[in-house]
Amino acid sequence: MNIDIFGYFAAILTTAAFLPQLLKTLKTKKAEDVSLITLIMFIVGVISWIIYGYQISSAPILIANLITLILNFLILISKIYFSKTSSQ
Amino acid sequence: MNIDIFGYFAAILTTAAFLPQLLKTLKTKKAEDVSLITLIMFIVGVISWIIYGYQISSAPILIANLITLILNFLILISKIYFSKTSSQ
Repeated sequence: MNIDIFGYFAAILTTAAFLPQLLKTLKTKKAEDVSLITLIMFIVGVISWIIYGYQISSAPILIANLITLILNFLILISKIYFSKTSSQ
Repeated sequence: MNIDIFGYFAAILTTAAFLPQLLKTLKTKKAEDVSLITLIMFIVGVISWIIYGYQISSAPILIANLITLILNFLILISKIYFSKTSSQ
């Protein structure tokens, strides 16, 4: 068995995992229970992974983290947007 | 500048990021808006990273993902526990 199979499987899962969160937030129109600090720390961390991936020329790190960044950025924007609309 | 600095910074942030979510969930006693599917997919992904880290003998991948696993497992348990107590 290819030793990298768990690496690819892991990268796909820890990236795609944020899609259900985004869909749930868009559907319920709230993300009050989702920690804002977690989202911000995670996004800054993912941006650092992208810089690191670029520095060491690792396409898998770059691609996985770019998708993770987009998904988490959309979750963050949705959370902020829905928290504003619900408090009005 | 050490090329690995962004890698370490990224690993610390994307690991520690889940602590505020855990603390928020324990404090508010609810995690209704946190996606269960996201948590499960993410945990399975993190377990795969641990297997991969073990296979390629990477201590940073092993350590970062073990901490991430513990934090996300505690968030999952808290979410399930509080959803049961609130529905009673």
